[in-house]
Amino acid sequence: MTPPDVAVTEVADPLAEAAPTMELLLRELDRRWPREAERLHRISRYALLPAGKLLRPLLLMEAAEAVGGGGPAVVPAALSVEYLHVGSLVHDDVIDGDAMRRGRPSVAARHGTADAIVTGDALMLGTFGVLTDGTDEAGGLPPGRVLDAVRVFAQAGVDLCRGQAMEAELRGDLGCGLDRYVTMTALKTGALFRAACRGGAILGGGSPAQRHALTAYAEHLGSAFQMHDDLLPYTSDSRTTGKSALSDIAAARPTFPVLLCHAMAGAPARARLEAALGGALPAADALRTVHELLETTGALDAARDRATAQADLAKSCLAELPRSRATAVLAAVADLSVSRDR
Amino acid sequence: MTPPDVAVTEVADPLAEAAPTMELLLRELDRRWPREAERLHRISRYALLPAGKLLRPLLLMEAAEAVGGGGPAVVPAALSVEYLHVGSLVHDDVIDGDAMRRGRPSVAARHGTADAIVTGDALMLGTFGVLTDGTDEAGGLPPGRVLDAVRVFAQAGVDLCRGQAMEAELRGDLGCGLDRYVTMTALKTGALFRAACRGGAILGGGSPAQRHALTAYAEHLGSAFQMHDDLLPYTSDSRTTGKSALSDIAAARPTFPVLLCHAMAGAPARARLEAALGGALPAADALRTVHELLETTGALDAARDRATAQADLAKSCLAELPRSRATAVLAAVADLSVSRDR
Repeated sequence: MTPPDVAVTEVADPLAEAAPTMELLLRELDRRWPREAERLHRISRYALLPAGKLLRPLLLMEAAEAVGGGGPAVVPAALSVEYLHVGSLVHDDVIDGDAMRRGRPSVAARHGTADAIVTGDALMLGTFGVLTDGTDEAGGLPPGRVLDAVRVFAQAGVDLCRGQAMEAELRGDLGCGLDRYVTMTALKTGALFRAACRGGAILGGGSPAQRHALTAYAEHLGSAFQMHDDLLPYTSDSRTTGKSALSDIAAARPTFPVLLCHAMAGAPARARLEAALGGALPAADALRTVHELLETTGALDAARDRATAQADLAKSCLAELPRSRATAVLAAVADLSVSRDR
Repeated sequence: MTPPDVAVTEVADPLAEAAPTMELLLRELDRRWPREAERLHRISRYALLPAGKLLRPLLLMEAAEAVGGGGPAVVPAALSVEYLHVGSLVHDDVIDGDAMRRGRPSVAARHGTADAIVTGDALMLGTFGVLTDGTDEAGGLPPGRVLDAVRVFAQAGVDLCRGQAMEAELRGDLGCGLDRYVTMTALKTGALFRAACRGGAILGGGSPAQRHALTAYAEHLGSAFQMHDDLLPYTSDSRTTGKSALSDIAAARPTFPVLLCHAMAGAPARARLEAALGGALPAADALRTVHELLETTGALDAARDRATAQADLAKSCLAELPRSRATAVLAAVADLSVSRDR
């Protein structure tokens, strides 16, 4: 049995409610990807386990339960969103040349580019295989619901790719504006949150209003999550986050607080920001300058406030649903999205 | 409007029956991927159009019609198998570093590795989006059938990846034996033929016996197709095939006639073959030696015979189906699979 995910053992109290779901998901992942198997399968296992936060599968399980239809029947669908997520991370690491993922060598670093591409493909394609498993189980789901989930997942997958392509276009472009950044993150990060929550609502048999509420929850949650993610390099140290504070700067990736700073700053501060991010300074100096400008312009506080506002909006969407253990977990996830330090 | 595919204008007579289907598919591809669109979409269009042989979509359309259920309702599914095929080719070219595809720069060469990976992903994921479109159309398909097709396509996609991983393992291994080679090509090449024919049979509402017959047809066709493909470097010139006769040798890719030769040859000829493929000779000399050994050992003739036998087996499977225009086209495809010069 795989050791439980870090996020399970260290969660704040409200999320303790989610521990049995997490254990179920981990057990099922371990069962479906045994150690002894053909090579592609073993590499897939390496990519999937030990698992990350399993946030997206958890969202799917809880969204389904929030509309009255969770449980074992939606476990295959919950795993499928993880396959899609992990498949895309495996490819991300090829594209970005990232050697580390979750504190150990990335698939690309460990097994090479060719195997990383093929493994990512197999995971993404396997997404739709496991998703259809839900109809096979005892007490299986109606085919029409599963087919709706297929449609939602396929669209989410394509949106994720659109977001990645857009991110590449925005690289190095501080003047891209917050609007384009928000569009990009709604695609790149929001897509799988939306797929998980909308997919769960569909598979759980939610009404159109409930599907809508959970989709809106997911969109705000995705925004909060990405905004907070962009803040982490300036609020935590890299030993905690596993992210180098320098990596966004080195990659000239416009991030939320930096774009906010660019929009809020007067001309002199803006010029200093552009110089720092334009490669004119050594990386450590650039980081120090950016950090200072984020503080003095108030961009850091403003970014925090906006992230919190998005998390609050996410929670407010839950009012459309009957109060339950599941909605409490979903609310706790929204809180966690802007309070986590990794 | 995109110019019609080469294979459409130059087909042998029996396949002329398929021309209207080909035109429908090309028109639909062109409509769904307009020139004016966001970047990822434009790169996807570049990968899809001008189209290749459209063999797999044609198989799906004809298989559906052969069981009494073809026509516009299965066009989205026919396109979906092409997206899966092309997405995998886009990734293949990244992995193999191939600069050319269908006589023009590959997506990787034209747009770079990052965009090629993301475009391949978007096409593979889009496979499942367009596949679900079939239920939306007027006279749409029953959700249960489409969901069965989703399952078949997902499994085919994963099998394709397994075949690619296995091919990488076999590289440089002349002693791998014909059995492993056959397993590899059944996965790598057979998977999408099987998905197309089985998917068509499912979506067309075929009986279990009809599904089985079309699946068996596809498996034999896939074998015939790949065997003939492996023969092309020794029977056609590279201006016709677009394949360098040296590329399989340079990549140390064990191919069907070479493995057959290795199995059939006596010790001295086997030693010469191993030396030629082991990098001991300049490439042109190696090719000459291999070609000579394929002739003198009778491996070339034996490989041709086996390919033809597979095509004949494919045709014999069609006897399970009512004779129709569609079965005539499927039989013609089987003949073409071992007579084409590209």
